[in-house]
Amino acid sequence: MKRMQIGLIGCGTVGEGVARILLGQQKLLRDRLGMELVLKKVADTDTQRKRSVTFDEGVFTTDASEILSDPEIDVVVEMVGGVGFAKDVIQRAIQAGKHVVTANKKLLALDGNSLFAEAAAKGVTIAYEASVGGCMPIIKTLRENLVANRITAMTGILNGTCNYILSEITRLGLSFEEALGQAQAKGFAEADPTLDIEGFDAAHKLAILAAIAFGMEIDFEGVYVEGISRIEAMDILYADQFGYRIKLLAIAKNHGDRVEARIHPAMIPTDCLLSQVNGSLNAVSVYGDAVEEMMLYGHGAGMMPTASAVVADLADIARDMGRSDGSRLPALGYLSGSIRRIPVMPISEIRTHYYFRVAAADRPGVLSRVSGILGQHNISIMSVHQKERHVSDAVPLVFMTHRAREADMCRALEEIRALPEVCRDPVLIRIEDPSANGRP
Amino acid sequence: MKRMQIGLIGCGTVGEGVARILLGQQKLLRDRLGMELVLKKVADTDTQRKRSVTFDEGVFTTDASEILSDPEIDVVVEMVGGVGFAKDVIQRAIQAGKHVVTANKKLLALDGNSLFAEAAAKGVTIAYEASVGGCMPIIKTLRENLVANRITAMTGILNGTCNYILSEITRLGLSFEEALGQAQAKGFAEADPTLDIEGFDAAHKLAILAAIAFGMEIDFEGVYVEGISRIEAMDILYADQFGYRIKLLAIAKNHGDRVEARIHPAMIPTDCLLSQVNGSLNAVSVYGDAVEEMMLYGHGAGMMPTASAVVADLADIARDMGRSDGSRLPALGYLSGSIRRIPVMPISEIRTHYYFRVAAADRPGVLSRVSGILGQHNISIMSVHQKERHVSDAVPLVFMTHRAREADMCRALEEIRALPEVCRDPVLIRIEDPSANGRP
Repeated sequence: MKRMQIGLIGCGTVGEGVARILLGQQKLLRDRLGMELVLKKVADTDTQRKRSVTFDEGVFTTDASEILSDPEIDVVVEMVGGVGFAKDVIQRAIQAGKHVVTANKKLLALDGNSLFAEAAAKGVTIAYEASVGGCMPIIKTLRENLVANRITAMTGILNGTCNYILSEITRLGLSFEEALGQAQAKGFAEADPTLDIEGFDAAHKLAILAAIAFGMEIDFEGVYVEGISRIEAMDILYADQFGYRIKLLAIAKNHGDRVEARIHPAMIPTDCLLSQVNGSLNAVSVYGDAVEEMMLYGHGAGMMPTASAVVADLADIARDMGRSDGSRLPALGYLSGSIRRIPVMPISEIRTHYYFRVAAADRPGVLSRVSGILGQHNISIMSVHQKERHVSDAVPLVFMTHRAREADMCRALEEIRALPEVCRDPVLIRIEDPSANGRP
Repeated sequence: MKRMQIGLIGCGTVGEGVARILLGQQKLLRDRLGMELVLKKVADTDTQRKRSVTFDEGVFTTDASEILSDPEIDVVVEMVGGVGFAKDVIQRAIQAGKHVVTANKKLLALDGNSLFAEAAAKGVTIAYEASVGGCMPIIKTLRENLVANRITAMTGILNGTCNYILSEITRLGLSFEEALGQAQAKGFAEADPTLDIEGFDAAHKLAILAAIAFGMEIDFEGVYVEGISRIEAMDILYADQFGYRIKLLAIAKNHGDRVEARIHPAMIPTDCLLSQVNGSLNAVSVYGDAVEEMMLYGHGAGMMPTASAVVADLADIARDMGRSDGSRLPALGYLSGSIRRIPVMPISEIRTHYYFRVAAADRPGVLSRVSGILGQHNISIMSVHQKERHVSDAVPLVFMTHRAREADMCRALEEIRALPEVCRDPVLIRIEDPSANGRP
């Protein structure tokens, strides 16, 4: 039976999961592939970590070079993470003519364009299904199942930590800090949660997905990023009353010569399936001109769901071993010559609906002054709600607007903030209706 | 540039969609594949039908043999439907060494085992992503993305007609007949809706999915099939009151040496994502030992969503043209030598929760007699509701049971039906909690 030999560099949580599958599911993989996937070497500097797998004598090493210089190893699985040593590992693997499987969204978001070019030049594959959405097959779906579609938009929940926190605030009425503490206690959030909470992790993933969906270069710098740390329980409560949930959304839209790519908290209607995605789960809705709407849902992180995606990539590489013409698929799903550099629209130019909340002194004329400012900036009000008094003397005024230009909205907010009756910074949350994406 | 030449046999709704994509998206497909997909010939006996595509001189023919005997045609797209001529087309294509793409779930459910064997013997591929779930990439996901998983269960909404009807009864309180009439008026149901309404269409799809998921031969005969024609608005209303929705579910579970495979209406909790899949949309939840739960959602039918899946299959075949070793993947995702014949459990042996409704004369002692019978058959009651009087003298008694054996439940119902106080046939609906599938 044919064999493919694998070197695993980095045996932390996901790496351990990969090893578990490769060692524990040999029969299943043989039955499906007609090939043997052999975990020949595992490198990690941490020799003390308790792992649920036992390696045969000679498999475990602390020296990644043993893998990178082993001519028998066909594929390197990079599970190091980060952008320093991981990049070095991938580049050395490529130069040695080895295929690479990685889940490293940050590295691909920042350096994917050049790494994919290096791999193509050497005729090897970088497979990265596990880098976005864990076990959700979003990359294969975009590159293969939707090959006949112009993708018009995507809306995703791509960060499980944020979704867990927002779900728990919604479900239990916790404060942001309490929910974050819980997420940390349960292992859904890192000790330093910045990368998740501030939206950067989701932005890395969106940069990769937008490139595949729209046939463009990866442009992480272009992604607008706003996290969830300023979301207050009060706004989640109001959202609920108006029939919305607040989610950290990853949004990409295709305007042909420009795209939108943005990460921010947004209200979505509760009758939209995405709004029902709770806890640490991920989901992504994709709109294509042929399929209209479709959605994938699953665990976006975790040892075994992510390892499942890594091994699926290994299986794909195994099935194509010995292809004379290199990779079966171009890395981003488009031939490199067809990939364009498409500019991302500045956030100031997007148009959407807005929710905003102003805490104002309970004096006559405030409502009129605020709505006057909105009118002067071409923002028309869909509904306004004056809420019972919550905070000292201030009355919360809640507005929902029709579609407006972000730049106009920001200018209006500047003026509203400057009103003497307004007690604190207004809260602004965009409203998205993903199900409207498919419509012209 | 390399070319793959395609012959399309059957240019009805989906066939027309395939032609539209192949003629309209040539640049997109070239940019992604680096190849030309050429629609060389289209055969259909209907020359009068208005189609949204115009074929070049010499492309359209009424004679399928022109395609089957054309040595330049690499792939035949069978869009004929049915099991007679369609089977003939596929077999002749295979014998001529051509690959086949089909969406014909009925034919594959009945004859897939032998057709796949014929194709393998000739070294050609039968691709059939569009046969189940339209544009939902369920077949690719099972065969490729979940390659490292033992699939433990699947729960799907696989028939858009039934889902539309049940959704509309739920949303508008229509009767079954009214909802069916609406579905027919809107084109979601055929003039003769039997295949959909009675569950056979979903059963064809489930037979295919279960084979791929569990590594077994396709066994359509083994699938238990019960349609939605006996569902009454009253039960949908009660379901809603108890926090459930009624869906026509396709359920497959893997017990190792036996499997469950059944189509029937079932109540599912409203906090389960599948319960929120409305209208003509489809969805399928898959439980695997590594990924835990994942779900796909999308249009399960319709011209363009289904055509999208057909063209994705064509793209996969194009990418593998010239592979010396035949197909990249075995048809059912397992090497033929590893596919087992796994018996499907008789419905009488399954264990689930039940909802049942008895219309009984409003006399003392009825509740005690009914619950006595349940107890004698080892069925324990989770809750009982005596509803306000609806029909003449009869009082609706509604029971929800704990998990029980179907055979016990049926025997108990026989005895309850025979009670003199019971006015009409009791209504029995199984209760499923798909989210419990992942749990041991």
